[in-house]
Amino acid sequence: MTDFHATRARFHIPDGIIYLDGNSLGPLPLAAKERAREVIETEWGGELIGAWNTAGWMGQPRRVGDRIAKLIGAPEGSIVMGDTLSIKVYQALAAALEMRPDRRVILSDSGNFPTDLYMAQGLIRSLGQGYELKVVAPEAVEAAIDESVAVLMVTEVDYRTGRLHDMVGLTASAHKAGALTLWDLAHSAGAIPVDVTKAGADFAVGCTYKYLNGGPGAPAFIYVAPKHADTACPALSGWMGHEAPFAFDREYRAGVGIERMRVGTPPIIALAVLDAALNAWEGVEMTDVRHASVALSELFIREVEARCPDIVLASPRDSALRGSQVSFRHSQGYAIMRALIARGVIGDFRAPDTLRFGFTPLYIGETDVLRAVAIMEHVLLTKSWDTPEYHRRARVT
Amino acid sequence: MTDFHATRARFHIPDGIIYLDGNSLGPLPLAAKERAREVIETEWGGELIGAWNTAGWMGQPRRVGDRIAKLIGAPEGSIVMGDTLSIKVYQALAAALEMRPDRRVILSDSGNFPTDLYMAQGLIRSLGQGYELKVVAPEAVEAAIDESVAVLMVTEVDYRTGRLHDMVGLTASAHKAGALTLWDLAHSAGAIPVDVTKAGADFAVGCTYKYLNGGPGAPAFIYVAPKHADTACPALSGWMGHEAPFAFDREYRAGVGIERMRVGTPPIIALAVLDAALNAWEGVEMTDVRHASVALSELFIREVEARCPDIVLASPRDSALRGSQVSFRHSQGYAIMRALIARGVIGDFRAPDTLRFGFTPLYIGETDVLRAVAIMEHVLLTKSWDTPEYHRRARVT
Repeated sequence: MTDFHATRARFHIPDGIIYLDGNSLGPLPLAAKERAREVIETEWGGELIGAWNTAGWMGQPRRVGDRIAKLIGAPEGSIVMGDTLSIKVYQALAAALEMRPDRRVILSDSGNFPTDLYMAQGLIRSLGQGYELKVVAPEAVEAAIDESVAVLMVTEVDYRTGRLHDMVGLTASAHKAGALTLWDLAHSAGAIPVDVTKAGADFAVGCTYKYLNGGPGAPAFIYVAPKHADTACPALSGWMGHEAPFAFDREYRAGVGIERMRVGTPPIIALAVLDAALNAWEGVEMTDVRHASVALSELFIREVEARCPDIVLASPRDSALRGSQVSFRHSQGYAIMRALIARGVIGDFRAPDTLRFGFTPLYIGETDVLRAVAIMEHVLLTKSWDTPEYHRRARVT
Repeated sequence: MTDFHATRARFHIPDGIIYLDGNSLGPLPLAAKERAREVIETEWGGELIGAWNTAGWMGQPRRVGDRIAKLIGAPEGSIVMGDTLSIKVYQALAAALEMRPDRRVILSDSGNFPTDLYMAQGLIRSLGQGYELKVVAPEAVEAAIDESVAVLMVTEVDYRTGRLHDMVGLTASAHKAGALTLWDLAHSAGAIPVDVTKAGADFAVGCTYKYLNGGPGAPAFIYVAPKHADTACPALSGWMGHEAPFAFDREYRAGVGIERMRVGTPPIIALAVLDAALNAWEGVEMTDVRHASVALSELFIREVEARCPDIVLASPRDSALRGSQVSFRHSQGYAIMRALIARGVIGDFRAPDTLRFGFTPLYIGETDVLRAVAIMEHVLLTKSWDTPEYHRRARVT
């Protein structure tokens, strides 16, 4: 059984803050703070260039990848860290399209995070040759899978509503039609149990600054199913993905397995911070996290609906169809969220009218949820976002 | 006049170390150490998601870019930070090729850093359509420029020998033939005076962990000449380069000017560290840096040649044809470099036989150079890389 009192002590949560925005930026893990000092002051400062070897910097992208692998059911050596999620989407898509040379369709849905769609659009422009990005409604994805589809690219958990795609089912359908799958796990890794191996996912990508608490702009990860790792062809063929980077050959030769998905020099300080942040998962069972997160979300929905009748649930009501965030809609959503933030309840807002709240049991408990709802009730009852007092506070936050 | 005693005090150089490898990884600036604590502990830790606004994180890629602009003769608003040099090469090349749709050749030289060539190879594979990477000898670049060339892609300073390309002359020749230019300034920015505006460079890229002391894997920069900034088309079309990232549109629309060269979520911690590292350039004139660096390099060459006859100069002898590093060749180069490092003289080695030494006046002076040569003389005279004592030391360094 996971001890959530123990995990909470691993984070710095400022006094008076109820932090329901771990789905956007996870809070600072104490271990990350210490590790940052070490990598900067002892390793970079003290060992200088030698730290590439003495401090093991060169192997960091794989080593940290292996730790994330454990959280998403991936085998060792199937994940490498680096760049941003956008870049990793591009790499995975480019490789997938090349593996299905007779097909021309990237299938995605309108609930996908925009950057995934944008990167696909950019790739298609470069490729020419009749490639097409087909975007359907989230509930229409399954029916749209056919033999024209080269790769199905979906984000498992919708960034606005928390709606959950069926990873196992959609992957099976895609494979049945001969298509590959690329899963964006930005809102899944560290939030819900994921098993890329069981699901048979071909590619998966994710960011690490949300539920993995790696810090603002922390490096992304890419998973390539082991059976594809030596055939997937890197479009972004940087020297760190070369078979022998320090041979300084003139011709690119893709590295062994997942190594080929490295591109440039790894972001060492950020990787060290992320590495330490992952210590927060020691002794944590993802099924416990899921169980606790569902309980917190249900409590939140129940209490909000009972006490704040003006606000409308935007997430699926059935927790089995939802990730670990809950969204509500209100025409004054932006102002309400600012009023909540001014009172220490930190969620976030997505245009045009959505208030998002993340339920991350590693550092959020029942008391926090109840206190957050009480504050929301007060804000809504008093319409306090529409007072001079609110406007004064809002300016300074 | 630049006060190099003052600049030296801005860096942490470990006791007993003569650091001649700033051309590979700059040492830790003290301000960067302090700033790292602030961005991690105060901003991320204390302000959480709010720091995107309160701490100005969103504008960091441009703000830091503007500081680098001053060092390479670029106007404000023409540089943005992010990703790695490899990714920035890809962006610039893809945009340049699209601006010369009737041409098919990327011209480069064998002295270019391999990742530039590799990224070009990857891009060409994606594009198909008869694109070609033509690689000639460094001294043959000028003659190879003709009307088939879409873009000339060269690194100003050779990473192995320090040989300097004529940026003004080659850019003029390229333009005369109707070609665009992409300058890799990895070994130029912070090392020698550069003026991308005067040279008329179309694109420029660089890393920031060498002479700009931004830390291991620090973010790269990309410069797009203002006249191209609104027409250059981003192949890596990520959400941060969108005209309105937080509108979450489904269709990509390139942002205004250099903003479109942003891709994913910016690496905030690394950018903050780099930002503070750039404080080391306050009150520093690049012409003074060049003057001092040439003087140190000349002294090093003269002393090494007088006292270490077995080792052969691999860099151009004429300082006007050389960046701020000096390379020597020796068949036992690897072992000799390890012996030097074991004795506190840190340079680096590039296969098969090159010893590289960087002369960075911000923290290196004459005394360091003379001491380094004395140690090298001892190592070579006693052949001490070939003793049991050396092998014992080498194992622990």
